[in-house]
Amino acid sequence: MAASSSSLMVDLNSDMGEGYGAYTMGRDAEILGIVTSANVACGFHAGDPEIMAATFRLARENRVAVGAHPGFPDLWGFGRRPMPFSASEIERLVAYQIGAAQALATYAGHRLSYVKAHGALGNLTQTDASVARAVTRAIRAVDPTLICLTIALGEQTLIAQEMGLTVKSEIFADRAYTDAGQLVSRQIEGAVIHDADQAAQRIRRMVERGAIETISGRSLATQIDSICVHSDTPGAVAIARRVRETLEEAGVRIRSFAD
Amino acid sequence: MAASSSSLMVDLNSDMGEGYGAYTMGRDAEILGIVTSANVACGFHAGDPEIMAATFRLARENRVAVGAHPGFPDLWGFGRRPMPFSASEIERLVAYQIGAAQALATYAGHRLSYVKAHGALGNLTQTDASVARAVTRAIRAVDPTLICLTIALGEQTLIAQEMGLTVKSEIFADRAYTDAGQLVSRQIEGAVIHDADQAAQRIRRMVERGAIETISGRSLATQIDSICVHSDTPGAVAIARRVRETLEEAGVRIRSFAD
Amino acid sequence: MAASSSSLMVDLNSDMGEGYGAYTMGRDAEILGIVTSANVACGFHAGDPEIMAATFRLARENRVAVGAHPGFPDLWGFGRRPMPFSASEIERLVAYQIGAAQALATYAGHRLSYVKAHGALGNLTQTDASVARAVTRAIRAVDPTLICLTIALGEQTLIAQEMGLTVKSEIFADRAYTDAGQLVSRQIEGAVIHDADQAAQRIRRMVERGAIETISGRSLATQIDSICVHSDTPGAVAIARRVRETLEEAGVRIRSFAD
Amino acid sequence: MAASSSSLMVDLNSDMGEGYGAYTMGRDAEILGIVTSANVACGFHAGDPEIMAATFRLARENRVAVGAHPGFPDLWGFGRRPMPFSASEIERLVAYQIGAAQALATYAGHRLSYVKAHGALGNLTQTDASVARAVTRAIRAVDPTLICLTIALGEQTLIAQEMGLTVKSEIFADRAYTDAGQLVSRQIEGAVIHDADQAAQRIRRMVERGAIETISGRSLATQIDSICVHSDTPGAVAIARRVRETLEEAGVRIRSFAD
Repeated sequence: MAASSSSLMVDLNSDMGEGYGAYTMGRDAEILGIVTSANVACGFHAGDPEIMAATFRLARENRVAVGAHPGFPDLWGFGRRPMPFSASEIERLVAYQIGAAQALATYAGHRLSYVKAHGALGNLTQTDASVARAVTRAIRAVDPTLICLTIALGEQTLIAQEMGLTVKSEIFADRAYTDAGQLVSRQIEGAVIHDADQAAQRIRRMVERGAIETISGRSLATQIDSICVHSDTPGAVAIARRVRETLEEAGVRIRSFAD
Repeated sequence: MAASSSSLMVDLNSDMGEGYGAYTMGRDAEILGIVTSANVACGFHAGDPEIMAATFRLARENRVAVGAHPGFPDLWGFGRRPMPFSASEIERLVAYQIGAAQALATYAGHRLSYVKAHGALGNLTQTDASVARAVTRAIRAVDPTLICLTIALGEQTLIAQEMGLTVKSEIFADRAYTDAGQLVSRQIEGAVIHDADQAAQRIRRMVERGAIETISGRSLATQIDSICVHSDTPGAVAIARRVRETLEEAGVRIRSFAD
Repeated sequence: MAASSSSLMVDLNSDMGEGYGAYTMGRDAEILGIVTSANVACGFHAGDPEIMAATFRLARENRVAVGAHPGFPDLWGFGRRPMPFSASEIERLVAYQIGAAQALATYAGHRLSYVKAHGALGNLTQTDASVARAVTRAIRAVDPTLICLTIALGEQTLIAQEMGLTVKSEIFADRAYTDAGQLVSRQIEGAVIHDADQAAQRIRRMVERGAIETISGRSLATQIDSICVHSDTPGAVAIARRVRETLEEAGVRIRSFAD
Repeated sequence: MAASSSSLMVDLNSDMGEGYGAYTMGRDAEILGIVTSANVACGFHAGDPEIMAATFRLARENRVAVGAHPGFPDLWGFGRRPMPFSASEIERLVAYQIGAAQALATYAGHRLSYVKAHGALGNLTQTDASVARAVTRAIRAVDPTLICLTIALGEQTLIAQEMGLTVKSEIFADRAYTDAGQLVSRQIEGAVIHDADQAAQRIRRMVERGAIETISGRSLATQIDSICVHSDTPGAVAIARRVRETLEEAGVRIRSFAD
């Protein structure tokens, strides 16, 4: 289960390119100096061709791996609302976004290496097998060499493995977990960890133990390939930086799972 | 210049998949029985992931080749208005659409073989070298094996050849040409040919002679690889059918340039 | 309860102006010669400023009353999907649409006299009191002299009365009713009445009796101020025409409830 | 021409409510404590029903007058691009937005008192008589009691007066003027004034003299009813604050022209 830190390796991922036209979102330039994988919005919940190309280019210059970050077609709601699409409609709208991202990554001299669903769509891949299957089928149909980045212990992990895709799983740097391995609702006290050091130490323990630490203190063994950090507030960037430093000090190598 | 009809071969192309959600446009099912190439809208001026996937699938079942048909992001104007985008912005928004189309063609078990710009964007590729170059650069960046379908005698033809792409050129079944080789404005009497037989005989002559016939009766030599027919009115479908029959009766083989 | 037909009066309403840009929907010109009230789409689920102004103008020329027909912001789904908006968000997006419709009706020389919610939003006003209240609050806040057109026996009817608005209720010309007064699901055999004469006779009986006739033959007493007819198929227009003729032959006066 | 400052009065206006969903733009809360008029985006170039209602409410709480700020339907370009709409199409899309703004202002307990065109549309009202006429006709058609806020010395000023509307004219706090009374292009050195004190003193002189001061030092007499300040950068807010303080110190009363 646990390994000596000296042989451990983990990826850090963050959502990026989530502006739209004149609107900005997140501190992409800063976070690109910290993470090893950038989840790039594909124009449905955020992003546009200009921002996508610029983000892929910036990621390449920072030697950061890139993935498509498809979401519901809901710019107004930033992809955070579960939209009433059927599983097969989701399949097509994810395929569309993957293709657009592949084209613009290639255009920018980079190469798309993975897919991670965004927001409400991402949440559904954790809890709803039909949506998890739809997103995974889209990936497989468009390009089966793309890695499927899933939420650790979520529905999509096993489904994508059964479909023959390469699967990598992530945990969240600043979110508490229930004993069932799901994210604690933001309504509940303690759901979000605001202290950078506390977040970083928790992540170090989880990576070293190969297990999620729940809000009640239990341990849930799982594969941990990546840690999701945010970039939308100064506090989030500070947590990301502290997580990276703490892991490196513990001897964990920070490297893209796509390398 | 002219060849015996028995060795002649030409493609018939038509715009397709130009509905949106509950809205329909064109008689795709009928026209797929007539043409050899389908220009599929990519979701910017028309089309959505559902319609794209369904159109690619239907084209495959009809053994019709498929191309991406990118346009300006202008659903309201159906891509018919010249939108104020810079050449480099056009480059990115065309790349985006090509990628989306490739993904959904692959998803539907087909393979994208060419790109043809739509509406106002297409018109600009005929007359504006910077736009012609932008569209062509997008194609080359995303996939240089894609064929570039251009308007005969337009700016993009030479530009795409110089950039090393495979180029095929089209003429219009029902539109009159000026002596400069451009389309006669729709405002002018005689700009659009409504009689199916007249249109078909004119096309036969142009294909046999390898030259565009202008409204004043002149002949402008050019490569003719494809004939663009419409599907949005019963009359347009009748013209398409008559063009095909007339060419076949004259011994011209109707076949996709992508075969 | 029942009245002699000679004193009876009823309105006929139909959705209109539901195209978008180059896309058309419904046979507005035909149906305007049959109905007395036009529910005009407001640009969220369908319609645009051009179509709205033209529809209001055409309605005025046909002496047909006009209402705002607000829907979810879902052009792709034509407003037929229940979108994840809170009741208070619905309140604002309905207020927005009513204002836009008032402005364009005034612009076209007409006067908006009522509001009827569209599609999935309309269905929710029938079954979900919080949505019914939200739509009604929007109407009252923007202009309390606007009439609230509700689904007979639905939640909004009583709510709008309690809020002090003028309420008029509609039944559907071609849809079967359950014994609970709700529409029979389209999945079920007999949900939609396709025969014009059968539909027209049923409507005549309902208007004469002041009661909805259910699929099992029961009678549910209710106020009937308007009959909703469709215009999206040739069959629908035929039903609308037959309903009007049958009512007139029975001595029922066809007149807008806004007159 | 010039008046003693003690009898002078001027309005300060700023664009507001220009976010969209999760995206923010400008420092509305700060600027509302400085200006007397808020130009509220109407959902076409920016804004949505939630933001509109919240902005109208906040303006009311700050006793700030509100106007509709219609723009081209171009969220991607933030309304800064001249879109290819005809004058009569502009008329309808402005009418639509005015109506939506009126409804949400009323909903929020406020009252819309003026209309000012945004971005590229605003620029066209300064230089293109047909667009100036279209915007003014929309205002007059929807509600002729609405004040027309125009760019001083621009085309719309005279046109709106001739159409019988109440007209108020604005100058810009941080933009240099050519001798022809137009804004100096942003490409040119000195086009934008970044120093708060310099901007404030210039505005004081212009208000006191009733004349625009051009980049070459000339004076162009004109009616000055309002000063447009920005809120999108910390520097812009500082200029706005300094302009207000300097005018008040000079005895100029800062008050909405709508009072």
